[in-house]
Amino acid sequence: MDQEINRIPQTSDIREAVERVNPFINKTPVLTSGTLNRLLNCEIFFKCENFQKVGAFKARGATNAVMQLEERFLLKGVATHSSGNHAQALSWAASLRNCKAYIVMPGNSSRVKVDAVKGYGGQITFCEPTLAARESKLAMVMDETGATEIHPYNDFRIISGQATAALELIEEIPDLDLIVAPVGGGGLLSGTALSAHYFSPKIKVIGAEPEKANDAYLSFIQKKFVPSVKPDTIADGLRTSLGSITFPIILKHVDQIVTVSEPSILKAMRYIWERMKILIEPSSAVPVSALLERKINTANKRVGVIISGGNVDLDHLPWIQ
Amino acid sequence: MDQEINRIPQTSDIREAVERVNPFINKTPVLTSGTLNRLLNCEIFFKCENFQKVGAFKARGATNAVMQLEERFLLKGVATHSSGNHAQALSWAASLRNCKAYIVMPGNSSRVKVDAVKGYGGQITFCEPTLAARESKLAMVMDETGATEIHPYNDFRIISGQATAALELIEEIPDLDLIVAPVGGGGLLSGTALSAHYFSPKIKVIGAEPEKANDAYLSFIQKKFVPSVKPDTIADGLRTSLGSITFPIILKHVDQIVTVSEPSILKAMRYIWERMKILIEPSSAVPVSALLERKINTANKRVGVIISGGNVDLDHLPWIQ
Repeated sequence: MDQEINRIPQTSDIREAVERVNPFINKTPVLTSGTLNRLLNCEIFFKCENFQKVGAFKARGATNAVMQLEERFLLKGVATHSSGNHAQALSWAASLRNCKAYIVMPGNSSRVKVDAVKGYGGQITFCEPTLAARESKLAMVMDETGATEIHPYNDFRIISGQATAALELIEEIPDLDLIVAPVGGGGLLSGTALSAHYFSPKIKVIGAEPEKANDAYLSFIQKKFVPSVKPDTIADGLRTSLGSITFPIILKHVDQIVTVSEPSILKAMRYIWERMKILIEPSSAVPVSALLERKINTANKRVGVIISGGNVDLDHLPWIQ
Repeated sequence: MDQEINRIPQTSDIREAVERVNPFINKTPVLTSGTLNRLLNCEIFFKCENFQKVGAFKARGATNAVMQLEERFLLKGVATHSSGNHAQALSWAASLRNCKAYIVMPGNSSRVKVDAVKGYGGQITFCEPTLAARESKLAMVMDETGATEIHPYNDFRIISGQATAALELIEEIPDLDLIVAPVGGGGLLSGTALSAHYFSPKIKVIGAEPEKANDAYLSFIQKKFVPSVKPDTIADGLRTSLGSITFPIILKHVDQIVTVSEPSILKAMRYIWERMKILIEPSSAVPVSALLERKINTANKRVGVIISGGNVDLDHLPWIQ
């Protein structure tokens, strides 16, 4: 990775990202629930990135990266390996500039995800479902096409883009005490922490992670990188390891990382569907679960929660066998 | 029914309803979908009453009725027969004034609905699942308790309350050409038509109804009351017949009623879940279906749609067998 990509976003990077992505993305609404506020004795503000383009905050980072590409790179396309929301986001963002998006996906990816990537114009290459196979297939595709890799999180343009979600929340809702975000590779959490640090430093930032994919938690408390090994969680967006850029930012600017059980994730997901009438994906339910399980002290506080996305397979809901 | 209840709401009734219900209900958001706008070549504004208290617009009418009750009636409680959102809404609204709500429900009502009514404090009496049994059981309950009946739609207080949803939409979104609302007993549609008539008379109001419960459509085109007989639709909120107050209002102030098939209702429901990431119930999908099926001419128009509610049984989604 070159020097330019491998750096920590500054205030100006995030401000510029806002200008760059705003013409293309949704300003997502902030919703509240009186029932939940009474239950937890606090005020919770949900930043609803499930209403974002492609159904997830990932549209922000991908747009910020693609919009910065010089013409000569655009001509050859962009590439990534992903079976999730980044694949859709990159395909969609690339289409905004008539740029090809080469997506390496494991052969066992769900039909819904494959169709979504195709729907946004992504060109899929299938591979074996291992990290090694994904990486080698991606290298092969880049060799063949000359496409530029856009990493899902370990890229200052991606982090700056994801940071705009928290900045919007901070600007709309004054005097937040906390912001809670899910943590997988750390793009969203590091961006959230930077936005809080630069634009409203009194806000504490907390990461929420599945117990069964607790690499960020372990890395955070041990202050050294611990990779994600065989993560077995329904929160499919949170199975990845932290990156070399996201981890130092998280270590420096995040106040706490909490973990939650699989049953509590499901319970929180269903609670939000039933009570708030919005679709959230399992990864988005992780911070909600941390609140419902009282893993975070929220009493009398004003709490922002980043709802990261709403992409679920409606034919296979986790509570229906 | 006494004279006072059996009349057509005036401008002042709706204005007063706004003042009366606003302290208790949610000002629901208006959402849009770029994808849907492009698909239909129009601008659609969804008034999201699925985010309303109790998950449906019914909270408006019930609150407006209960808040007008004199103390002597409050002491004896309110009563209705309903297996749907009105049962929940009346239970909830009554609880705001520490008033008992006696709800007659068919014995075959779903567990979810029974639990919801209980959750809001309603006192349930079960009966056989026929209209005759519901009415006779309700009469019995009212005899025993002295409770006051609050009818789900054929009551000027209910209609005035439901009318506040369209008024909010009209005040937030200027220059609408059309508003589309579902029609069952006609409380929402007649209220919507009155709000358009009084506050923005250029707006055309269109009712959408399942083909398999097309009594309002038949009544409208034949200009005489046709009852709902064995309605066999998934849109469980739209199975009832028009009322003696709602029908004349609809005949006078509604411009068109269109009908849609069962498969198109399901398709529209799922489309909104997937694309907009919000939960809507089958009844709410009926107007959306009318748009998707091009039953309404919307080209280049600004179209309001009342999303009536979001109460679904998450254990039994209609597209999962």
